[in-house]
This record gives sequence, structure tokens and C-alpha cells, in this order.
Amino acid sequence: MGGDGAPGIVIDGLQRVAERHPGIRLLLVGDEAVIAPLLARSRASAICTVRHAGSVISNEIKGTAALRLRDSSMRVAIDAVARNEALGVVSAGNSGALLALAKIVVKTIPGIDRPALAAISPSAGGDVVMLDLGANVACDSRNLAEFALMGEAFASVVLGLPAPTIGLLNVGSEQMKGDDRIRQAADMLRASPLSSQFHGFVEGHDITAGTTDVVVTDGFTGNVALKTGEGAMKLAGSLLKQVFKASLLSRIAYLLARPGLDRMREWLDPRRYNGAVLLGLNGVVVKSHGGADAEGFAHAVDVAMDMVTHRFNERIRESVSRFEAARTGSVAAERAANASSDEPVASRLATTG
Amino acid sequence: MGGDGAPGIVIDGLQRVAERHPGIRLLLVGDEAVIAPLLARSRASAICTVRHAGSVISNEIKGTAALRLRDSSMRVAIDAVARNEALGVVSAGNSGALLALAKIVVKTIPGIDRPALAAISPSAGGDVVMLDLGANVACDSRNLAEFALMGEAFASVVLGLPAPTIGLLNVGSEQMKGDDRIRQAADMLRASPLSSQFHGFVEGHDITAGTTDVVVTDGFTGNVALKTGEGAMKLAGSLLKQVFKASLLSRIAYLLARPGLDRMREWLDPRRYNGAVLLGLNGVVVKSHGGADAEGFAHAVDVAMDMVTHRFNERIRESVSRFEAARTGSVAAERAANASSDEPVASRLATTG
Repeated sequence: MGGDGAPGIVIDGLQRVAERHPGIRLLLVGDEAVIAPLLARSRASAICTVRHAGSVISNEIKGTAALRLRDSSMRVAIDAVARNEALGVVSAGNSGALLALAKIVVKTIPGIDRPALAAISPSAGGDVVMLDLGANVACDSRNLAEFALMGEAFASVVLGLPAPTIGLLNVGSEQMKGDDRIRQAADMLRASPLSSQFHGFVEGHDITAGTTDVVVTDGFTGNVALKTGEGAMKLAGSLLKQVFKASLLSRIAYLLARPGLDRMREWLDPRRYNGAVLLGLNGVVVKSHGGADAEGFAHAVDVAMDMVTHRFNERIRESVSRFEAARTGSVAAERAANASSDEPVASRLATTG
Repeated sequence: MGGDGAPGIVIDGLQRVAERHPGIRLLLVGDEAVIAPLLARSRASAICTVRHAGSVISNEIKGTAALRLRDSSMRVAIDAVARNEALGVVSAGNSGALLALAKIVVKTIPGIDRPALAAISPSAGGDVVMLDLGANVACDSRNLAEFALMGEAFASVVLGLPAPTIGLLNVGSEQMKGDDRIRQAADMLRASPLSSQFHGFVEGHDITAGTTDVVVTDGFTGNVALKTGEGAMKLAGSLLKQVFKASLLSRIAYLLARPGLDRMREWLDPRRYNGAVLLGLNGVVVKSHGGADAEGFAHAVDVAMDMVTHRFNERIRESVSRFEAARTGSVAAERAANASSDEPVASRLATTG
């Protein structure tokens, strides 16, 4: 079990999950001697089974070194997903290790070259999905097109949109902008089954404007853009705090405007956006922020639940088949996709804090 | 003369410049038949001379096509810089055309491979310089190191800092983060005369936190980060507007907090940050936002003035020599730099709106 406040915050979070989804079954992976007594005192015990793990992956360890620790809580939880004992995993631990372990142990869905990290962020036009947020520092045009495919499926499941629109992040909206890689990705999307949902290029300010429901970019740019947007919001918040503290009148102003300010803060609450998802794997892998509180962790479990319940990976597989069919011009692949067996869906998840 | 409100807004802006800097001499390039009568009625006439240009570069034209229009106002103004009739140029026209013309006609300073677009943006720790903002979609490690050199000189001139700190934008602050290109750039800076000012890697949120005075990145990431930060600030502003409009009490709150809110708005005023500068050329090239108003345009001229007055390009040349000396381990280059003749500095600028 990892994360800054584990295991206390995780168990508090799972208590909230137990109240919201009494039907869920969770495998809680970590040091049994520590977890079991805490769990016994919590209502989370109604939905949790403990599985012992002998070690924890620290935040300092590199992804490759994490692979060698076969008894770590993260590894034991991910092994449970690979063996189909759990349908997904939620972790608040080391991101690099989670990515490396998930790629090697759970493996990508056939037809998907690389998994991408996606999350939801606020915009004037409602919530938007952004990916990749750092799983792949360098991406080629095919990777970007696959991220669009996965982002579309994610937005339809998590935001409940029937036909999410897709934008490719660039330095300008005109077709000749950017480099070959990004222009080729745009060409692929225009020729794909997603062409009617593909808006074309979007710019940095389009993310918070909500110009499209999905914003696709490489992991370097996405990581920088996400953190830059969060930083700007934080600056705006701290400036506002200064304004309201400046004088007696402004303190009164704060009290008068408080209901609206509280609603605004609630809407922008990072906990509401906690739970970045590693898309494209044979199982649901959700990364909770290491510093998330109980409500934030519970939200990350909600996201994993949503993906399992809405058969997210089935959608990805169908989408990959449609892409393949469009590429080969054959309908054979599409038939195969439609005939694919419905996997039994249960709400089994493994959590490692 | 270009820009959305040219020539009216440009002449209004120059009137403000005339009030602030009566000693400046400006070459106003555009359609003489249109400009001359407008100028005659303005106090800007005291500082301006008109130079006729037969055509204007539209916003739709590509950089390469702009090179063929030899009588465009942008070209005539840039020619004046290349011939040393003006020390710098301020334009609110087509950015791509300005970049292409400046690179080919004015040319880069020896030792600088590519010019970079820099601008100032607000942070919790005071103003910060960010570059490249889009002049170079792809950059190698040497380009990034040169951007650091130019950004440092720009911050010392425009922000008046004796030893500005430098950060390299990355997806994490640890030394192993990012790709080879960015890690090599960091190695170059650690081995350079700027090593004591080099902070290492910074992340997206460090831009608005003001962790370093200068933030260096490639033109793709910089352009996206700049626009994402602006977009987030705009979203915060519009949410705040909704809060204050929600009820009678919140409208009263707005009136009570207004002095502080006005100060906050003033501090974040994009006009105060107008004037992106193309660094690394044999002359000062400033790009005013196409939609800037008179005050914004005047600010862009102020920036150009600052750079001319503080002999910005001399600093770049000295810095290049110090870098060269450190690279070759020879002090010969440094002596040559110290002996370089002081160019006569006058406040002559060409403006094309």
C-alpha cells in the first residue's frame, strides 16, 4: 500500500466507497499485520478482503527496479489483475513503477501500441478528458491516433457523452501548423471511423474553453499543460485570497460572496478530478494522487468502478477493430468485433492505496 | 502596417509613447496616404517619420510567401533594421511572416543557431521570462542551451535582475526525467558559465509559482504552456464573474472588494505582458499581439526601447563569447568579447503596427 497517507486515508476512503457501492468487492493489498486491525474497526470491512504483501515500492525507486520486487503490494495487486482475480487496480503509489508494472504484467490490448495516462479537467464547456499526461514522453503519429481512440472511449464512459469530440493539441489551429508527426496523426484521424468527431487542431487555451471533449497530445506536452493549468488556477486562487484579506470591507465582501465562492471551489476541487487512468491495458489501472485525501481516494475508486461497469476495455477493443477495418478496407474485422464474447462483468477491484 | 486595429490603434499607442519617451524617434511604415493625415492630427507626429510601403502582409499568408512581397510594410521596416537605419522593429502583424523575414533579412547573432520568441508572464514570485513560445516547433539540446543564454540576458534587461535563475521545463524535477535532448541541454548548462544560475528542471506549475526567473522550453511546449496558462486564468476570471453576479449580496460583495479586485486585474492585465520578443537577431524584433489595444501596443514599444537602451544584443554577444570560451577552455574568445566596440546606441525604432 502506497501514497502519502496510507493506510489510514485509504481505509477512510474505502469506507466512503462501501457506503456508495455496497455491492463492490475489493482486494486490499499490503502489510496484513497493519491493515487487518484498522480494517476491523472500519465499515470498509464489509467490502474488503486483505491480501498480504511483504514490501512497499517507495517513491524514490525507478520503474525498472520496481519490477524486481515481486512481493511489493503494487506487484501483488497488479498480478491479481493479470490473473483476472480483480478487474482493475487503484494505486496511490509510485507512478513510474505503476506504469512499468502495468505495461509488463497486465500488457496492452492487442492493437494498442502504448498505454496513455488520461484524466478529467474542468473547462467552461464542462469536463474534458486530456491524454497523454506523462506515460510517454515521446510519441509518434500512430500513438497519437491511438490516444484519440482511447480518449474518445474514456470520455463516452466517464463523461457519459454519446459522441465526444476530439482535438489534437497544436501551436495553432490551421492545418499546416505543427510538425509532420502531428499533421500525420490528424490525417489518420480524418481517415478513421472517428472522422466525424475529430475537430482538428486545438490550442492551449482550448483546453479550459472546452472546445472539444477530448484533448490529445504527447506525454511531455500533456504533463506540462496539465501542471501549467493547475498552477495558473492556484495563482488565481492565492491572488483572490489576498484580495479578500486586504481590508475589513473586503473581509465582509468574502462573507457575502461565500456561497458562490464555495460552489466555485467545489467545482474546481482537485479531489473531483482525482484518479488518472492508464488506458489501453487488459484491465483497469487507476492512479490516485499520492497526496489525495479519503474523498479523493474514494473518487479514484469510483472512476475504476465506472470503467469496469461500462465495459470500457470492450469499447476499446471494438474501436480498435473498427480502426483496423477502416485501414484494411475489410469488414471481416468488424464482424469479429461484434461477435466477441461478452466477458462477465463484476465489480472486483484490487486497491493498494 | 498590420494588426487588427491598424493604423488607428497604432497611432493612439504611439501618442502614449511620445508622452513617455519624447526623445525616441520612430519610423512609421505603411500606406502613406492613410497614415500621414491620421498622424498629422496626433501628438505622435512629434516622434514619427512616415515611410511608405505599397502592400501589407495579410494574416493568412505563409512565412515563405511573405518573403516575396518586397514592398510590404513589414519588409520595409525590417529592411530598415538590416540597414541599421533603425535599431529595432515592432510589429502587430503576421507572426510567421515576421519570424521568417527577421531570420532571413536581419539574421541571427553569430553563435546563435536560431532565434526564440520570449515573453514575460506573471507568477507568485514576480514576473518570469518564458521562451521559446513558438518560433521553433522542434529544438535540439544546443538550441535549448542557447535559449537559456538569451532568456537570462532578457530577464536581466527587462526584469532588471542581476543574476536571473534559469529552469528547464520538464515532466519532473529529478535529473533522470525527460528525454535525452533535455537531459543533454541540462548537462550543457551545468558545464556553462551560467551553471550557478541554473536551477535544473522545473515543471508546469513552477511557471506561475515563480520557482525560476527564466523558464526554457521548445517552441511547441512553450506555446501550449503559455496558452494553457492564459486559458486557465480566463476560466478563473469568468467563474469569478459568475460568482459576483449570482445574487444581490454577491453584487454588494463585488463593490466592497472592488479596489483589491481591480488591483488584481491590473496586475494580470495582458497588456502589461504584451510584446513578445524575437531574441538572437542582429536587431531588436518585437511582436505586439494582433488584438492589442493602444496601451498594449505602447507597451510593446516600451519593451523594444528597454532592449535598445540596455544594449541587449551586446549582452547576448558577450554571453555567446563566454559560452564559447568555456567550451574551448580558452580565454582568447573572452578577451575578444571584452574588446568588442561599443555600438552607438540611439532610440531609433521602426514600427509597422
